[in-house]
Amino acid sequence: MNEDRFTADLADMFSHRRKDVFTGIGDDAAVLDLSLPGDQLLLAAADQVIRNIHFTPDTPPELIAKKLLNRNISDIAAMGGTPTHALLTVAVESLQEDWLKAFHMGLAAEAERYGIAVIGGDLAHTPNDLVATLTILGTVPKQKLCLRSNAKSGDILYLTGTFGRSFQTGHHLTFTPRLDAAQALAGTYTNAMMDVSDGLAKDLSRFAAASGVSVKITTDLPKRDGANDEEALNDGEDYELIIAVPPEKSQALERSGLPGKLGLTRAGIFTGGQPAGTIIYHEQKIQEKGYDHFYEN
Amino acid sequence: MNEDRFTADLADMFSHRRKDVFTGIGDDAAVLDLSLPGDQLLLAAADQVIRNIHFTPDTPPELIAKKLLNRNISDIAAMGGTPTHALLTVAVESLQEDWLKAFHMGLAAEAERYGIAVIGGDLAHTPNDLVATLTILGTVPKQKLCLRSNAKSGDILYLTGTFGRSFQTGHHLTFTPRLDAAQALAGTYTNAMMDVSDGLAKDLSRFAAASGVSVKITTDLPKRDGANDEEALNDGEDYELIIAVPPEKSQALERSGLPGKLGLTRAGIFTGGQPAGTIIYHEQKIQEKGYDHFYEN
Repeated sequence: MNEDRFTADLADMFSHRRKDVFTGIGDDAAVLDLSLPGDQLLLAAADQVIRNIHFTPDTPPELIAKKLLNRNISDIAAMGGTPTHALLTVAVESLQEDWLKAFHMGLAAEAERYGIAVIGGDLAHTPNDLVATLTILGTVPKQKLCLRSNAKSGDILYLTGTFGRSFQTGHHLTFTPRLDAAQALAGTYTNAMMDVSDGLAKDLSRFAAASGVSVKITTDLPKRDGANDEEALNDGEDYELIIAVPPEKSQALERSGLPGKLGLTRAGIFTGGQPAGTIIYHEQKIQEKGYDHFYEN
Repeated sequence: MNEDRFTADLADMFSHRRKDVFTGIGDDAAVLDLSLPGDQLLLAAADQVIRNIHFTPDTPPELIAKKLLNRNISDIAAMGGTPTHALLTVAVESLQEDWLKAFHMGLAAEAERYGIAVIGGDLAHTPNDLVATLTILGTVPKQKLCLRSNAKSGDILYLTGTFGRSFQTGHHLTFTPRLDAAQALAGTYTNAMMDVSDGLAKDLSRFAAASGVSVKITTDLPKRDGANDEEALNDGEDYELIIAVPPEKSQALERSGLPGKLGLTRAGIFTGGQPAGTIIYHEQKIQEKGYDHFYEN
Protein backbone atom coordinates (compact mmCIF):
# COMPACT_ATOMS: atom_id res chain seq x y z
CA MET A 1 0.00 0.00 0.00
CA ASN A 2 1.37 3.40 -0.93
CA GLU A 3 0.82 5.75 1.96
CA ASP A 4 0.63 9.05 0.15
CA ARG A 5 -1.74 7.72 -2.48
CA PHE A 6 -3.99 6.19 0.19
CA THR A 7 -4.00 9.50 2.07
CA ALA A 8 -4.96 11.33 -1.09
CA ASP A 9 -7.83 8.84 -1.62
CA LEU A 10 -8.99 9.46 1.95
CA ALA A 11 -8.84 13.20 1.55
CA ASP A 12 -11.10 12.78 -1.49
CA MET A 13 -13.41 10.44 0.42
CA PHE A 14 -13.71 12.95 3.26
CA SER A 15 -13.96 15.94 0.97
CA HIS A 16 -17.42 16.82 2.31
CA ARG A 17 -16.61 20.39 3.19
CA ARG A 18 -18.39 22.36 5.79
CA LYS A 19 -17.93 26.05 5.15
CA ASP A 20 -16.07 26.31 8.48
CA VAL A 21 -13.31 23.87 7.39
CA PHE A 22 -10.41 26.07 6.36
CA THR A 23 -8.00 23.13 5.91
CA GLY A 24 -9.00 19.48 6.34
CA ILE A 25 -6.94 16.29 5.98
CA GLY A 26 -3.43 16.80 4.63
CA ASP A 27 -1.57 19.24 6.88
CA ASP A 28 -0.14 18.81 10.39
CA ALA A 29 -3.49 19.89 11.87
CA ALA A 30 -6.94 20.70 10.58
CA VAL A 31 -7.91 24.38 10.61
CA LEU A 32 -11.45 25.48 11.45
CA ASP A 33 -12.83 28.98 11.09
CA LEU A 34 -15.49 29.14 13.81
CA SER A 35 -15.53 32.96 13.93
CA LEU A 36 -13.53 33.04 17.15
CA PRO A 37 -12.76 36.51 18.52
CA GLY A 38 -9.50 38.17 17.48
CA ASP A 39 -9.47 36.49 14.08
CA GLN A 40 -8.32 33.24 15.69
CA LEU A 41 -8.64 29.89 13.94
CA LEU A 42 -9.17 26.59 15.76
CA LEU A 43 -6.61 23.82 15.15
CA ALA A 44 -7.23 20.11 15.71
CA ALA A 45 -4.96 17.09 15.27
CA ALA A 46 -4.96 13.48 16.47
CA ASP A 47 -2.05 11.10 16.92
CA GLN A 48 -1.34 7.79 18.63
CA VAL A 49 1.47 5.85 20.29
CA ILE A 50 1.54 2.06 20.17
CA ARG A 51 3.60 -0.44 22.17
CA ASN A 52 6.36 -2.12 20.16
CA ILE A 53 5.96 0.56 17.48
CA HIS A 54 6.45 3.89 19.23
CA PHE A 55 7.82 2.63 22.54
CA THR A 56 8.99 -0.64 24.09
CA PRO A 57 7.35 -2.70 26.86
CA ASP A 58 9.86 -1.31 29.38
CA THR A 59 9.40 2.38 28.50
CA PRO A 60 8.31 4.22 31.67
CA PRO A 61 4.63 5.21 31.43
CA GLU A 62 5.43 8.86 32.15
CA LEU A 63 7.66 9.00 29.06
CA ILE A 64 5.01 7.35 26.88
CA ALA A 65 2.51 9.99 27.97
CA LYS A 66 5.05 12.77 27.42
CA LYS A 67 5.80 11.51 23.92
CA LEU A 68 2.10 11.23 23.06
CA LEU A 69 1.39 14.79 24.13
CA ASN A 70 4.54 16.29 22.65
CA ARG A 71 4.12 14.78 19.19
CA ASN A 72 0.68 16.39 19.12
CA ILE A 73 2.07 19.71 20.37
CA SER A 74 4.63 19.49 17.56
CA ASP A 75 1.74 19.38 15.05
CA ILE A 76 0.15 22.49 16.55
CA ALA A 77 3.54 24.24 16.63
CA ALA A 78 4.05 23.52 12.93
CA MET A 79 0.82 25.41 12.14
CA GLY A 80 2.09 28.44 14.06
CA GLY A 81 -0.43 27.77 16.82
CA THR A 82 -0.74 27.44 20.58
CA PRO A 83 -2.03 24.16 22.08
CA THR A 84 -5.01 24.59 24.40
CA HIS A 85 -7.00 21.38 25.11
CA ALA A 86 -6.53 17.61 24.79
CA LEU A 87 -8.67 14.48 24.78
CA LEU A 88 -7.05 11.14 25.59
CA THR A 89 -8.04 7.55 24.84
CA VAL A 90 -6.20 4.49 26.14
CA ALA A 91 -6.75 0.88 25.08
CA VAL A 92 -4.69 -1.50 27.19
CA GLU A 93 -4.63 -5.26 27.64
CA SER A 94 -4.24 -5.37 31.39
CA LEU A 95 -5.51 -2.60 33.58
CA GLN A 96 -2.77 -2.20 36.13
CA GLU A 97 -3.72 0.69 38.32
CA ASP A 98 -0.10 1.66 39.09
CA TRP A 99 0.81 1.86 35.41
CA LEU A 100 -2.31 3.83 34.57
CA LYS A 101 -1.79 6.27 37.43
CA ALA A 102 1.82 6.90 36.37
CA PHE A 103 0.77 7.35 32.73
CA HIS A 104 -2.01 9.78 33.55
CA MET A 105 0.13 11.69 36.06
CA GLY A 106 2.85 11.99 33.41
CA LEU A 107 0.33 13.37 30.96
CA ALA A 108 -1.14 15.76 33.51
CA ALA A 109 2.30 17.12 34.43
CA GLU A 110 3.35 17.66 30.81
CA ALA A 111 -0.02 19.23 29.92
CA GLU A 112 0.29 21.59 32.88
CA ARG A 113 3.68 22.81 31.62
CA TYR A 114 2.03 23.99 28.42
CA GLY A 115 -1.22 25.24 29.96
CA ILE A 116 -3.14 22.53 28.13
CA ALA A 117 -6.39 21.36 29.76
CA VAL A 118 -7.10 17.61 29.44
CA ILE A 119 -10.86 17.69 29.03
CA GLY A 120 -11.96 14.14 28.29
CA GLY A 121 -11.30 10.75 26.86
CA ASP A 122 -11.89 7.06 27.20
CA LEU A 123 -10.08 4.14 28.83
CA ALA A 124 -10.93 0.62 27.69
CA HIS A 125 -9.66 -2.94 27.59
CA THR A 126 -8.09 -4.42 24.48
CA PRO A 127 -6.99 -8.07 24.20
CA ASN A 128 -3.27 -7.73 23.45
CA ASP A 129 -1.82 -4.32 22.70
CA LEU A 130 -1.39 -0.91 24.23
CA VAL A 131 -2.62 2.00 22.13
CA ALA A 132 -2.94 5.55 23.42
CA THR A 133 -4.33 8.34 21.30
CA LEU A 134 -4.56 12.04 21.89
CA THR A 135 -6.54 14.71 20.10
CA ILE A 136 -5.18 18.18 20.58
CA LEU A 137 -6.92 21.49 20.03
CA GLY A 138 -5.19 24.81 19.63
CA THR A 139 -5.60 28.28 18.25
CA VAL A 140 -3.71 30.46 15.80
CA PRO A 141 -4.34 34.03 14.65
CA LYS A 142 -5.17 33.85 10.93
CA GLN A 143 -2.17 36.04 10.08
CA LYS A 144 0.23 33.56 11.76
CA LEU A 145 -1.18 30.39 10.20
CA CYS A 146 1.54 28.22 8.61
CA LEU A 147 0.69 25.63 5.95
CA ARG A 148 2.88 23.10 4.21
CA SER A 149 1.52 24.34 0.90
CA ASN A 150 2.74 27.91 1.37
CA ALA A 151 6.41 27.60 0.32
CA LYS A 152 7.41 29.42 -2.90
CA SER A 153 10.23 28.99 -5.34
CA GLY A 154 13.09 31.15 -4.05
CA ASP A 155 12.21 30.67 -0.37
CA ILE A 156 15.05 29.68 1.94
CA LEU A 157 14.87 26.35 3.79
CA TYR A 158 15.53 26.45 7.52
CA LEU A 159 15.51 23.45 9.87
CA THR A 160 15.32 23.36 13.65
CA GLY A 161 17.60 21.04 15.63
CA THR A 162 19.24 17.86 14.39
CA PHE A 163 18.19 14.69 12.61
CA GLY A 164 18.67 10.92 12.80
CA ARG A 165 19.10 8.24 15.49
CA SER A 166 16.08 9.44 17.45
CA PHE A 167 15.24 5.95 18.74
CA GLN A 168 18.83 5.05 19.60
CA THR A 169 19.40 8.28 21.53
CA GLY A 170 16.06 8.36 23.33
CA HIS A 171 15.24 11.70 21.65
CA HIS A 172 11.85 10.29 20.54
CA LEU A 173 10.77 10.07 24.20
CA THR A 174 12.35 13.17 25.67
CA PHE A 175 12.24 15.79 22.92
CA THR A 176 10.83 19.26 23.48
CA PRO A 177 8.46 20.22 20.67
CA ARG A 178 9.63 23.34 18.81
CA LEU A 179 6.82 25.54 20.05
CA ASP A 180 9.08 28.46 20.98
CA ALA A 181 10.81 28.52 17.60
CA ALA A 182 7.52 28.15 15.76
CA GLN A 183 5.86 30.99 17.62
CA ALA A 184 8.86 33.29 17.16
CA LEU A 185 8.79 32.72 13.39
CA ALA A 186 5.11 32.27 12.46
CA GLY A 187 3.56 35.28 10.80
CA THR A 188 6.74 37.34 11.09
CA TYR A 189 9.25 35.33 9.05
CA THR A 190 7.17 32.49 7.63
CA ASN A 191 3.72 31.15 6.85
CA ALA A 192 5.04 27.77 5.67
CA MET A 193 6.14 25.17 8.21
CA MET A 194 5.83 21.43 8.74
CA ASP A 195 6.60 18.99 11.51
CA VAL A 196 9.21 16.29 10.67
CA SER A 197 8.11 12.97 12.14
CA ASP A 198 8.34 10.38 9.32
CA GLY A 199 11.90 11.19 8.30
CA LEU A 200 13.36 14.41 6.89
CA ALA A 201 13.53 13.18 3.29
CA LYS A 202 9.93 11.95 3.27
CA ASP A 203 8.49 14.98 5.02
CA LEU A 204 10.58 17.53 3.13
CA SER A 205 9.46 15.92 -0.11
CA ARG A 206 5.81 16.14 1.01
CA PHE A 207 6.28 19.75 2.04
CA ALA A 208 7.79 20.67 -1.33
CA ALA A 209 5.16 18.65 -3.20
CA ALA A 210 2.31 20.36 -1.31
CA SER A 211 3.82 23.71 -2.31
CA GLY A 212 4.46 22.70 -5.91
CA VAL A 213 8.20 23.23 -5.68
CA SER A 214 11.41 21.21 -5.36
CA VAL A 215 14.18 21.80 -2.87
CA LYS A 216 17.95 21.87 -2.98
CA ILE A 217 19.82 21.17 0.25
CA THR A 218 22.97 23.30 0.15
CA THR A 219 24.60 22.48 3.47
CA ASP A 220 25.58 19.38 5.42
CA LEU A 221 22.52 18.23 7.33
CA PRO A 222 22.51 18.94 11.06
CA LYS A 223 22.83 15.46 12.62
CA ARG A 224 22.01 14.03 16.02
CA ASP A 225 24.76 12.23 18.01
CA GLY A 226 26.76 10.24 15.46
CA ALA A 227 24.03 9.96 12.82
CA ASN A 228 25.15 9.69 9.21
CA ASP A 229 23.39 11.30 6.22
CA GLU A 230 21.29 8.19 5.57
CA GLU A 231 20.02 8.18 9.16
CA ALA A 232 19.43 11.93 9.22
CA LEU A 233 17.36 11.68 6.07
CA ASN A 234 15.33 8.57 6.87
CA ASP A 235 15.17 7.61 10.55
CA GLY A 236 12.13 9.68 11.52
CA GLU A 237 10.76 10.64 14.95
CA ASP A 238 12.77 13.88 14.89
CA TYR A 239 9.92 16.25 15.77
CA GLU A 240 11.82 19.12 14.23
CA LEU A 241 10.43 21.78 11.89
CA ILE A 242 10.84 22.46 8.19
CA ILE A 243 10.51 26.20 7.61
CA ALA A 244 10.35 28.14 4.34
CA VAL A 245 11.34 31.80 4.61
CA PRO A 246 10.96 34.26 1.70
CA PRO A 247 14.37 35.67 0.68
CA GLU A 248 13.73 39.25 1.88
CA LYS A 249 12.51 37.96 5.25
CA SER A 250 15.48 35.61 5.44
CA GLN A 251 17.80 38.63 5.48
CA ALA A 252 15.83 40.14 8.36
CA LEU A 253 15.81 36.79 10.14
CA GLU A 254 19.60 36.48 9.90
CA ARG A 255 20.02 40.03 11.22
CA SER A 256 17.65 39.32 14.12
CA GLY A 257 19.98 36.80 15.73
CA LEU A 258 17.08 34.35 16.04
CA PRO A 259 18.71 31.54 14.01
CA GLY A 260 21.48 31.21 16.64
CA LYS A 261 19.11 31.60 19.56
CA LEU A 262 16.61 29.03 18.18
CA GLY A 263 19.21 26.58 16.83
CA LEU A 264 18.13 26.98 13.19
CA THR A 265 20.18 25.72 10.26
CA ARG A 266 19.92 27.57 6.96
CA ALA A 267 19.86 24.41 4.88
CA GLY A 268 18.86 25.14 1.31
CA ILE A 269 16.55 26.78 -1.16
CA PHE A 270 13.20 25.92 -2.75
CA THR A 271 13.22 26.02 -6.55
CA GLY A 272 11.21 25.17 -9.63
CA GLY A 273 12.47 23.29 -12.69
CA GLN A 274 12.12 19.77 -11.19
CA PRO A 275 9.04 17.66 -10.49
CA ALA A 276 7.36 19.00 -7.32
CA GLY A 277 8.68 17.22 -4.24
CA THR A 278 12.13 16.50 -5.67
CA ILE A 279 15.00 16.85 -3.18
CA ILE A 280 18.55 17.50 -4.34
CA TYR A 281 21.32 16.85 -1.80
CA HIS A 282 25.02 16.90 -2.61
CA GLU A 283 23.99 17.50 -6.23
CA GLN A 284 21.99 14.23 -6.37
CA LYS A 285 18.29 13.43 -6.31
CA ILE A 286 17.63 11.55 -3.12
CA GLN A 287 15.19 8.69 -2.65
CA GLU A 288 13.30 8.88 0.60
CA LYS A 289 12.84 5.74 2.66
CA GLY A 290 11.29 7.25 5.78
CA TYR A 291 8.86 5.59 8.08
CA ASP A 292 5.47 4.90 6.51
CA HIS A 293 2.80 5.44 9.09
CA PHE A 294 0.06 5.61 6.48
CA TYR A 295 -1.67 8.86 7.12
CA GLU A 296 -1.67 11.62 9.61
CA ASN A 297 -3.26 14.82 10.78
CA MET B 1 -10.10 -1.32 40.05
CA ASN B 2 -13.23 0.69 40.71
CA GLU B 3 -14.09 2.64 37.60
CA ASP B 4 -15.95 5.55 39.11
CA ARG B 5 -13.33 6.13 41.79
CA PHE B 6 -10.53 5.99 39.20
CA THR B 7 -12.44 8.50 37.03
CA ALA B 8 -12.83 10.81 39.99
CA ASP B 9 -9.08 10.56 40.65
CA LEU B 10 -8.39 11.43 37.01
CA ALA B 11 -10.74 14.37 37.08
CA ASP B 12 -8.77 15.65 40.08
CA MET B 13 -5.47 14.95 38.32
CA PHE B 14 -6.62 16.92 35.27
CA SER B 15 -8.27 19.66 37.26
CA HIS B 16 -5.99 22.27 35.73
CA ARG B 17 -8.73 24.58 34.55
CA ARG B 18 -8.38 26.97 31.74
CA LYS B 19 -10.98 29.70 32.04
CA ASP B 20 -12.53 28.51 28.78
CA VAL B 21 -13.32 25.00 30.15
CA PHE B 22 -16.99 25.12 31.08
CA THR B 23 -17.20 21.37 31.86
CA GLY B 24 -14.21 19.02 31.76
CA ILE B 25 -13.99 15.28 32.44
CA GLY B 26 -17.16 13.72 33.84
CA ASP B 27 -20.02 14.37 31.43
CA ASP B 28 -20.81 12.87 28.01
CA ALA B 29 -18.72 15.58 26.37
CA ALA B 30 -16.45 18.39 27.48
CA VAL B 31 -17.86 21.89 27.07
CA LEU B 32 -15.64 24.81 26.04
CA ASP B 33 -16.62 28.46 26.04
CA LEU B 34 -14.50 29.94 23.23
CA SER B 35 -16.75 33.00 22.78
CA LEU B 36 -18.30 31.61 19.61
CA PRO B 37 -20.93 33.79 17.95
CA GLY B 38 -24.58 33.24 18.93
CA ASP B 39 -23.71 32.20 22.49
CA GLN B 40 -22.65 28.77 21.19
CA LEU B 41 -20.46 26.46 23.24
CA LEU B 42 -18.01 23.97 21.72
CA LEU B 43 -18.45 20.28 22.66
CA ALA B 44 -15.71 17.63 22.41
CA ALA B 45 -15.76 13.91 23.19
CA ALA B 46 -13.57 10.91 22.32
CA ASP B 47 -14.47 7.25 22.18
CA GLN B 48 -13.02 4.04 20.77
CA VAL B 49 -14.07 0.66 19.38
CA ILE B 50 -11.87 -2.40 19.85
CA ARG B 51 -11.99 -5.79 18.15
CA ASN B 52 -13.26 -8.61 20.39
CA ILE B 53 -14.62 -5.98 22.78
CA HIS B 54 -16.95 -3.75 20.76
CA PHE B 55 -17.19 -5.90 17.62
CA THR B 56 -16.12 -9.32 16.41
CA PRO B 57 -13.50 -10.26 13.79
CA ASP B 58 -16.27 -10.87 11.25
CA THR B 59 -18.13 -7.57 11.75
CA PRO B 60 -18.25 -5.73 8.40
CA PRO B 61 -15.88 -2.73 8.44
CA GLU B 62 -18.70 -0.34 7.41
CA LEU B 63 -20.64 -1.29 10.56
CA ILE B 64 -17.61 -0.83 12.81
CA ALA B 65 -17.14 2.66 11.39
CA LYS B 66 -20.85 3.42 11.76
CA LYS B 67 -20.82 2.29 15.40
CA LEU B 68 -17.71 4.33 16.16
CA LEU B 69 -19.20 7.51 14.76
CA ASN B 70 -22.67 6.97 16.19
CA ARG B 71 -21.55 6.33 19.75
CA ASN B 72 -19.75 9.66 19.58
CA ILE B 73 -22.80 11.38 18.07
CA SER B 74 -24.82 9.93 20.96
CA ASP B 75 -22.51 11.77 23.38
CA ILE B 76 -23.03 15.08 21.56
CA ALA B 77 -26.80 14.44 21.42
CA ALA B 78 -26.91 13.90 25.19
CA MET B 79 -25.44 17.40 25.70
CA GLY B 80 -28.22 18.89 23.56
CA GLY B 81 -25.71 19.61 20.80
CA THR B 82 -25.14 19.20 17.08
CA PRO B 83 -22.10 17.22 15.86
CA THR B 84 -19.89 19.11 13.41
CA HIS B 85 -16.37 17.67 12.94
CA ALA B 86 -14.52 14.42 13.61
CA LEU B 87 -10.93 13.17 13.84
CA LEU B 88 -10.20 9.48 13.40
CA THR B 89 -7.30 7.26 14.42
CA VAL B 90 -6.93 3.61 13.46
CA ALA B 91 -4.37 1.14 14.82
CA VAL B 92 -4.55 -2.17 12.99
CA GLU B 93 -2.33 -5.25 12.88
CA SER B 94 -2.48 -5.93 9.17
CA LEU B 95 -3.04 -3.15 6.70
CA GLN B 96 -5.40 -4.70 4.20
CA GLU B 97 -6.30 -2.00 1.74
CA ASP B 98 -9.77 -3.43 1.01
CA TRP B 99 -10.72 -3.51 4.67
CA LEU B 100 -9.40 0.00 5.24
CA LYS B 101 -11.19 1.39 2.19
CA ALA B 102 -14.49 -0.15 3.29
CA PHE B 103 -14.02 1.15 6.84
CA HIS B 104 -13.21 4.68 5.72
CA MET B 105 -15.99 4.70 3.11
CA GLY B 106 -18.44 3.57 5.80
CA LEU B 107 -17.31 6.39 8.04
CA ALA B 108 -17.47 8.95 5.25
CA ALA B 109 -21.02 7.90 4.31
CA GLU B 110 -22.30 8.04 7.89
CA ALA B 111 -20.56 11.36 8.55
CA GLU B 112 -22.11 12.80 5.39
CA ARG B 113 -25.62 11.88 6.65
CA TYR B 114 -25.08 14.09 9.67
CA GLY B 115 -23.17 16.88 7.93
CA ILE B 116 -20.06 16.02 9.94
CA ALA B 117 -16.70 16.87 8.33
CA VAL B 118 -13.93 14.33 8.96
CA ILE B 119 -10.96 16.66 9.24
CA GLY B 120 -8.01 14.55 10.28
CA GLY B 121 -6.56 11.58 12.05
CA ASP B 122 -3.86 8.96 12.00
CA LEU B 123 -3.53 5.40 10.70
CA ALA B 124 -0.79 3.18 12.13
CA HIS B 125 0.31 -0.41 12.57
CA THR B 126 -0.16 -2.25 15.87
CA PRO B 127 1.15 -5.79 16.50
CA ASN B 128 -2.09 -7.65 17.33
CA ASP B 129 -5.30 -5.72 17.81
CA LEU B 130 -7.63 -3.37 15.98
CA VAL B 131 -8.44 -0.15 17.78
CA ALA B 132 -10.27 2.77 16.16
CA THR B 133 -10.88 6.01 17.98
CA LEU B 134 -12.86 9.05 17.05
CA THR B 135 -12.92 12.52 18.53
CA ILE B 136 -16.06 14.44 17.79
CA LEU B 137 -16.65 18.17 17.99
CA GLY B 138 -20.04 19.82 18.16
CA THR B 139 -21.81 22.98 19.18
CA VAL B 140 -24.70 23.80 21.47
CA PRO B 141 -26.35 27.14 22.28
CA LYS B 142 -25.70 27.82 25.98
CA GLN B 143 -29.41 27.85 26.71
CA LYS B 144 -29.84 24.31 25.33
CA LEU B 145 -26.84 22.74 27.12
CA CYS B 146 -27.80 19.55 28.99
CA LEU B 147 -25.67 18.21 31.84
CA ARG B 148 -25.98 15.03 33.87
CA SER B 149 -25.74 17.13 37.01
CA ASN B 150 -28.84 19.22 36.24
CA ALA B 151 -31.65 16.88 37.44
CA LYS B 152 -33.62 18.03 40.48
CA SER B 153 -35.73 16.22 43.04
CA GLY B 154 -39.27 16.15 41.63
CA ASP B 155 -38.15 15.95 37.98
CA ILE B 156 -39.77 13.26 35.85
CA LEU B 157 -37.56 10.54 34.32
CA TYR B 158 -38.03 9.89 30.60
CA LEU B 159 -36.17 7.30 28.55
CA THR B 160 -35.82 7.01 24.78
CA GLY B 161 -36.22 3.61 23.09
CA THR B 162 -35.70 0.21 24.67
CA PHE B 163 -33.02 -1.54 26.72
CA GLY B 164 -31.19 -4.86 26.88
CA ARG B 165 -29.84 -7.49 24.45
CA SER B 166 -28.05 -4.91 22.32
CA PHE B 167 -25.27 -7.32 21.34
CA GLN B 168 -27.59 -10.25 20.64
CA THR B 169 -29.90 -8.19 18.45
CA GLY B 170 -27.21 -6.30 16.55
CA HIS B 171 -28.57 -2.99 17.89
CA HIS B 172 -25.06 -2.00 19.04
CA LEU B 173 -23.93 -1.86 15.39
CA THR B 174 -27.00 -0.44 13.69
CA PHE B 175 -28.58 1.98 16.18
CA THR B 176 -29.47 5.52 15.25
CA PRO B 177 -28.23 7.96 17.89
CA ARG B 178 -31.09 9.92 19.48
CA LEU B 179 -30.10 13.24 17.98
CA ASP B 180 -33.63 14.14 16.86
CA ALA B 181 -35.16 13.46 20.26
CA ALA B 182 -32.36 15.29 22.05
CA GLN B 183 -32.63 18.38 19.87
CA ALA B 184 -36.42 18.48 20.22
CA LEU B 185 -36.16 18.41 24.01
CA ALA B 186 -32.97 20.30 24.87
CA GLY B 187 -33.57 23.78 26.23
CA THR B 188 -37.33 23.51 25.83
CA TYR B 189 -38.23 20.60 28.11
CA THR B 190 -34.92 19.70 29.72
CA ASN B 191 -31.36 20.74 30.53
CA ALA B 192 -30.46 17.36 32.06
CA MET B 193 -29.72 14.40 29.80
CA MET B 194 -27.22 11.56 29.59
CA ASP B 195 -26.30 8.89 27.09
CA VAL B 196 -26.82 5.26 28.23
CA SER B 197 -23.90 3.13 27.06
CA ASP B 198 -22.65 1.18 30.10
CA GLY B 199 -26.04 -0.22 31.15
CA LEU B 200 -29.15 1.63 32.29
CA ALA B 201 -28.68 0.87 35.99
CA LYS B 202 -25.06 2.02 36.04
CA ASP B 203 -25.64 5.14 33.96
CA LEU B 204 -28.90 6.11 35.66
CA SER B 205 -27.15 5.77 39.00
CA ARG B 206 -24.31 8.00 37.77
CA PHE B 207 -26.80 10.55 36.42
CA ALA B 208 -28.68 10.67 39.73
CA ALA B 209 -25.43 10.78 41.72
CA ALA B 210 -24.08 13.67 39.60
CA SER B 211 -27.33 15.54 40.32
CA GLY B 212 -27.36 14.68 44.05
CA VAL B 213 -30.70 12.86 43.86
CA SER B 214 -32.05 9.31 43.79
CA VAL B 215 -34.55 7.91 41.34
CA LYS B 216 -37.65 5.74 41.55
CA ILE B 217 -38.60 3.77 38.43
CA THR B 218 -42.40 3.60 38.42
CA THR B 219 -43.11 1.69 35.24
CA ASP B 220 -41.98 -1.54 33.63
CA LEU B 221 -38.78 -0.80 31.75
CA PRO B 222 -39.07 -0.58 27.96
CA LYS B 223 -37.21 -3.67 26.75
CA ARG B 224 -35.58 -4.64 23.49
CA ASP B 225 -36.66 -7.89 21.72
CA GLY B 226 -37.19 -10.43 24.50
CA ALA B 227 -34.91 -8.80 27.08
CA ASN B 228 -35.77 -9.36 30.74
CA ASP B 229 -35.41 -6.77 33.52
CA GLU B 230 -31.90 -7.94 34.39
CA GLU B 231 -30.74 -7.53 30.79
CA ALA B 232 -32.50 -4.18 30.36
CA LEU B 233 -30.78 -2.86 33.48
CA ASN B 234 -27.28 -4.23 32.91
CA ASP B 235 -26.47 -5.22 29.32
CA GLY B 236 -25.23 -1.84 28.08
CA GLU B 237 -24.56 -0.56 24.53
CA ASP B 238 -28.11 0.83 24.34
CA TYR B 239 -27.19 4.35 23.17
CA GLU B 240 -30.48 5.66 24.50
CA LEU B 241 -31.01 8.80 26.55
CA ILE B 242 -31.88 9.42 30.18
CA ILE B 243 -33.86 12.67 30.40
CA ALA B 244 -34.98 14.61 33.50
CA VAL B 245 -37.94 16.94 32.91
CA PRO B 246 -39.18 19.40 35.55
CA PRO B 247 -42.81 18.57 36.55
CA GLU B 248 -44.40 21.70 34.99
CA LYS B 249 -42.53 21.09 31.74
CA SER B 250 -43.51 17.43 31.86
CA GLN B 251 -47.18 18.44 31.58
CA ALA B 252 -46.40 20.58 28.54
CA LEU B 253 -44.33 17.76 27.06
CA GLU B 254 -47.19 15.27 27.44
CA ARG B 255 -49.61 17.73 25.79
CA SER B 256 -47.18 18.33 22.92
CA GLY B 257 -47.50 14.78 21.61
CA LEU B 258 -43.70 14.53 21.44
CA PRO B 259 -43.41 11.50 23.77
CA GLY B 260 -45.36 9.36 21.28
CA LYS B 261 -43.58 10.82 18.26
CA LEU B 262 -40.10 10.38 19.79
CA GLY B 263 -40.77 7.01 21.43
CA LEU B 264 -40.26 8.27 24.98
CA THR B 265 -41.26 6.31 28.07
CA ARG B 266 -42.25 8.24 31.17
CA ALA B 267 -40.39 5.93 33.51
CA GLY B 268 -40.17 7.43 37.00
CA ILE B 269 -39.33 10.32 39.24
CA PHE B 270 -36.20 11.79 40.80
CA THR B 271 -36.40 12.17 44.58
CA GLY B 272 -34.39 12.98 47.67
CA GLY B 273 -34.39 11.00 50.91
CA GLN B 274 -31.98 8.26 49.75
CA PRO B 275 -28.22 8.35 49.17
CA ALA B 276 -27.55 10.14 45.85
CA GLY B 277 -27.45 7.65 43.00
CA THR B 278 -29.85 5.15 44.56
CA ILE B 279 -32.26 3.50 42.12
CA ILE B 280 -35.55 2.00 43.31
CA TYR B 281 -37.31 -0.37 40.91
CA HIS B 282 -40.33 -2.50 41.81
CA GLU B 283 -39.98 -1.06 45.34
CA GLN B 284 -36.44 -2.48 45.73
CA LYS B 285 -32.99 -0.92 45.64
CA ILE B 286 -31.22 -2.30 42.62
CA GLN B 287 -27.55 -3.19 42.33
CA GLU B 288 -26.03 -2.19 39.05
CA LYS B 289 -23.72 -4.62 37.28
CA GLY B 290 -23.27 -2.76 33.99
CA TYR B 291 -20.27 -2.82 31.78
CA ASP B 292 -17.17 -1.25 33.33
CA HIS B 293 -15.25 0.54 30.64
CA PHE B 294 -13.22 2.56 33.13
CA TYR B 295 -13.79 6.10 32.13
CA GLU B 296 -15.34 8.11 29.42
CA ASN B 297 -16.06 11.47 27.98
